Amino acid sequence: MSRYTAPLREMRFVLFEVLQAESAFAELVGAENASRDLIDAVLEEGARFTEQVLAPLNQTGDAEGCRWEQGRVLSPKGFKEAYTQFVDGGWNGLTAAEKFGGQGLPEVVGAVVKEMIDSANLSWGTYPLLSHGATESLKNVGTPWQQEVFLKPIVEGRWTGTMCLTESHCGSDLGLLKTKAEPAGDDTYRITGSKIFITAGDHDMTENIIHLVLARLPDAPPGVRGISLFIVPKIKVNREGVMGAANALGCGSIEHKMGIKGSATCVMNFDGAEGYLIGAANKGLAAMFLMMNSARLAVGLQGLGLMERAWQNALAYARERLQGRSLTGPKRPDKAADPLIVHPDIRRMLFTQKALIEAGRALAYRAILLVDQAQHSRTPEAREQAEVLLGFLTPIVKAGLTEFANECCYHAQQIFGGHGYIREWGMEQLSRDARITTVYEGTTGIQALDLIGRKVLQLQGAGLKLFATEISAFCAQHAGESALVEFVTALARATQEWMDLTLAIGKAAEANPDAIGGAAHDYLFYSTYVAFAYYSLRLLVAAAGTDQDFQAAKLANTRFYFQRILPRATAHAAAIRSGSGNLMELADTAFV
Amino acid sequence: MSRYTAPLREMRFVLFEVLQAESAFAELVGAENASRDLIDAVLEEGARFTEQVLAPLNQTGDAEGCRWEQGRVLSPKGFKEAYTQFVDGGWNGLTAAEKFGGQGLPEVVGAVVKEMIDSANLSWGTYPLLSHGATESLKNVGTPWQQEVFLKPIVEGRWTGTMCLTESHCGSDLGLLKTKAEPAGDDTYRITGSKIFITAGDHDMTENIIHLVLARLPDAPPGVRGISLFIVPKIKVNREGVMGAANALGCGSIEHKMGIKGSATCVMNFDGAEGYLIGAANKGLAAMFLMMNSARLAVGLQGLGLMERAWQNALAYARERLQGRSLTGPKRPDKAADPLIVHPDIRRMLFTQKALIEAGRALAYRAILLVDQAQHSRTPEAREQAEVLLGFLTPIVKAGLTEFANECCYHAQQIFGGHGYIREWGMEQLSRDARITTVYEGTTGIQALDLIGRKVLQLQGAGLKLFATEISAFCAQHAGESALVEFVTALARATQEWMDLTLAIGKAAEANPDAIGGAAHDYLFYSTYVAFAYYSLRLLVAAAGTDQDFQAAKLANTRFYFQRILPRATAHAAAIRSGSGNLMELADTAFV
Repeated sequence: MSRYTAPLREMRFVLFEVLQAESAFAELVGAENASRDLIDAVLEEGARFTEQVLAPLNQTGDAEGCRWEQGRVLSPKGFKEAYTQFVDGGWNGLTAAEKFGGQGLPEVVGAVVKEMIDSANLSWGTYPLLSHGATESLKNVGTPWQQEVFLKPIVEGRWTGTMCLTESHCGSDLGLLKTKAEPAGDDTYRITGSKIFITAGDHDMTENIIHLVLARLPDAPPGVRGISLFIVPKIKVNREGVMGAANALGCGSIEHKMGIKGSATCVMNFDGAEGYLIGAANKGLAAMFLMMNSARLAVGLQGLGLMERAWQNALAYARERLQGRSLTGPKRPDKAADPLIVHPDIRRMLFTQKALIEAGRALAYRAILLVDQAQHSRTPEAREQAEVLLGFLTPIVKAGLTEFANECCYHAQQIFGGHGYIREWGMEQLSRDARITTVYEGTTGIQALDLIGRKVLQLQGAGLKLFATEISAFCAQHAGESALVEFVTALARATQEWMDLTLAIGKAAEANPDAIGGAAHDYLFYSTYVAFAYYSLRLLVAAAGTDQDFQAAKLANTRFYFQRILPRATAHAAAIRSGSGNLMELADTAFV
Repeated sequence: MSRYTAPLREMRFVLFEVLQAESAFAELVGAENASRDLIDAVLEEGARFTEQVLAPLNQTGDAEGCRWEQGRVLSPKGFKEAYTQFVDGGWNGLTAAEKFGGQGLPEVVGAVVKEMIDSANLSWGTYPLLSHGATESLKNVGTPWQQEVFLKPIVEGRWTGTMCLTESHCGSDLGLLKTKAEPAGDDTYRITGSKIFITAGDHDMTENIIHLVLARLPDAPPGVRGISLFIVPKIKVNREGVMGAANALGCGSIEHKMGIKGSATCVMNFDGAEGYLIGAANKGLAAMFLMMNSARLAVGLQGLGLMERAWQNALAYARERLQGRSLTGPKRPDKAADPLIVHPDIRRMLFTQKALIEAGRALAYRAILLVDQAQHSRTPEAREQAEVLLGFLTPIVKAGLTEFANECCYHAQQIFGGHGYIREWGMEQLSRDARITTVYEGTTGIQALDLIGRKVLQLQGAGLKLFATEISAFCAQHAGESALVEFVTALARATQEWMDLTLAIGKAAEANPDAIGGAAHDYLFYSTYVAFAYYSLRLLVAAAGTDQDFQAAKLANTRFYFQRILPRATAHAAAIRSGSGNLMELADTAFV
């Protein structure tokens, strides 16, 4: 059975010392009341709830899984009760606007709680997560009556939401989708089609489920420009918010998956189900992307949550498990063997996890603070700047943290040796759960194309320039500090190479569009290693006023990162420079 | 449901063209009859058996798993019948000496068949695999009567064998083991203790199971120098080979694991069980290592088999699945979308798999050809040289192929997108099965220490020198070929750096023993990348006489390897050069 204790000190350190959240909130409209005391109390309560209520259901939920019985999905034992406690505790509406019944706290505070939820029980966390996604769309493109009727009950937690995008023949390529929406003559539509991989598509936790469904109107142009978004409730709801009969939709089956077995992944069949258009006709993809961006950051947090839990358990095991002797002589001569943690290779795996978790947490929280700044900064310029930087960092957070989550869970499992492969120890579940995070809400390959193609090349590098300028200013500020010089120099050099690589890809892409796809993955990783280097160093700088042990740990992590992880970027640079010829020249048929 | 077709052409190409197996066999005592025609027939029959009998049981075996009922283990449906067919077909004794009832074919031929078994059904393959391990010990240190009584039935397949090493408190550190062996007054011993993680410790396939058990004699010195090896049959067997009563041992439970669910992983309890000492008292670890080395190579083949199957399915899916359009314009304008294989990032993942599989196969087969050469070369010098090189390559084969198997199954799963996470597609099983291979028979960390500590530093680099000399001679031979110059130059440079890194580690270790452990992992990977580069290039050279498509594919794989995979070695070199300070200086208690 794996353990979990919310890393409150690390979380607060990032929030208040590294990101200076208090002064950041002071600049936001409506966040003036988010005081440190209030946030501390929220985080402590969140720690208690996730450690005591959610964490104990993680392994049992995995073992039991969801069940599909006669069209209904039953969640694992205890999930419904935990959801009720969650809603009763006000957690569901933590960051929603007060006018919709929420508590109006900044998104970044919600992100800290979300990290705890993901560490404690990723599967359980998918149910409120999907509500959060639906909230985003309703908030941004819903009409007032749609917000009144659908948004409030979701914020309250009485209903949950879903995102119905994928069909069996189209995942990454939504232009292929076939689900139809026919006008019914009144203000409703009849939705017909089959969607797959619908997280929380059905469950037994709430009285209604509000599906946000992508579908095509009869006269829609082909491809992605002909997709509209619809609100399709499980139980019909009229404009007064009164529930009526069951809608013509149902869960056809649930998937049997590698992991997140407590999360219901549903095939949803719509057979002329009644729905309302949300947002403009044929603009559904844009409306969906409002939830998608938020969902991508949320999946990055899932990666973070999993790494954190894996690391905590690996560290505890490395301290407890006696195996072998230190090569420099016994460290515990009173025992039959030394603890694993004396071995350099065990420490290599521990440091790898810790260095990636810490920099990843700072980067993720920073990105989500940008969500608050993009929405609530006082000036349009500040909002626009936050939005651009957020768009740039989102694929890095999503792909970087989820890929590293897989790596870190792998290391944690490895530290457990054979026990890491056995279910009762709980480590293999973390690896299985982590495996979905690089896939859903856009695969790593999709994130990579989003970064170099959309966020960098299409936008003339606007976000990259903002970020690189920030890093350069940071380097200039600390260039004279002898204790930091090795790190500042390396960071400045890597940032410069990042710019050079960007220009080289842009130039190559002018002659050959495949240069983008050929470089995308390695560019994403290069970018991620630089961004993590920056935050690793910011953590060290921010630790200056803390106690000796904390500072020593931060110095060790930063040094490890710069000496043993950042060099990986050179391999990615070499791959980028090698061009796309080595990928594209072999005929498709000649792969043998 | 995932597919499998034995890659006969690739296998034969490596065996006959790259490794020149026919002329190699001609130099071995007793392998003169291993003609190409005979081997071809064996491989074709092996392909048929594995594709038709074993592969269909892979997914069902995973879903059903093993069952433990009242002390007995029942293997998944069909496993027993497949085992009977395997034995009836003469497969079990394929490489065993004729005097023990085997067919006396070279081990490397057995390795090709074993790769097929591992691709088709890794779990099933663990049952005969463990017999093969027991065979090694009995053959090498068993007395004539032990060979007569125990070895022959195992070779025949009437009985299977196990390796009983691990106890709950000791895995990598066998010096801690507590199982006792007390002399019974006759020539037998009473074995008492509990072993965990015993693969095929109990099952329903054969009438008897022969456990090879590590235990301590009453007067044994502490640590690894006080461990002896015992033959402990499930059903007692007297010196005439007659089975008697059940022995005082049993399977206490089976583990619930992440993968290889069709393989019974048993807790074995010995309660004064009757056993025979095999080999010299207190020399059990050496005797066990005779099976361990063979088992490590076998696990490397497991990695290879899993990668191959994952790759085949990923390639087929990439060709079939229509999703998105090529950035250079539609490749299948007749269809709603292009196949995945047009996308550079999909090709990156396909090439990564293919390049690692091909070089890995050549390296693994080469190592196992060295097993034949170490045993059957005509001169002691040739046997000794093969033994040294084999010892050096074994940790690279074991760790390299299993780590890459995890990477490649990850890529294959990723290519499948969401479907890769769903059980019915079979890809997630390959990832789960692969995860054990970096753990059992010595973790990657143990292999890394074996390589730099034992095989390189303790033996004054004997194996490394042999291998590097071979690479250098190869580079010199092909230095003048303009088509190869980019590869030869890079290989020579990497080999030189390998030597430099080795010297640097040796020097650092004189002052600080932790320098070995601190460099071990990265040295293992550096070594693996160089060894793979060498075999990637040898494949290209050997393809010179083949058809255009085959040559083009080999050129593409080699180019991809050198341009996009070999650069990873630079990151490992940087990590090695960074020293062990960044791992060891932080106090154990300060990891927070």
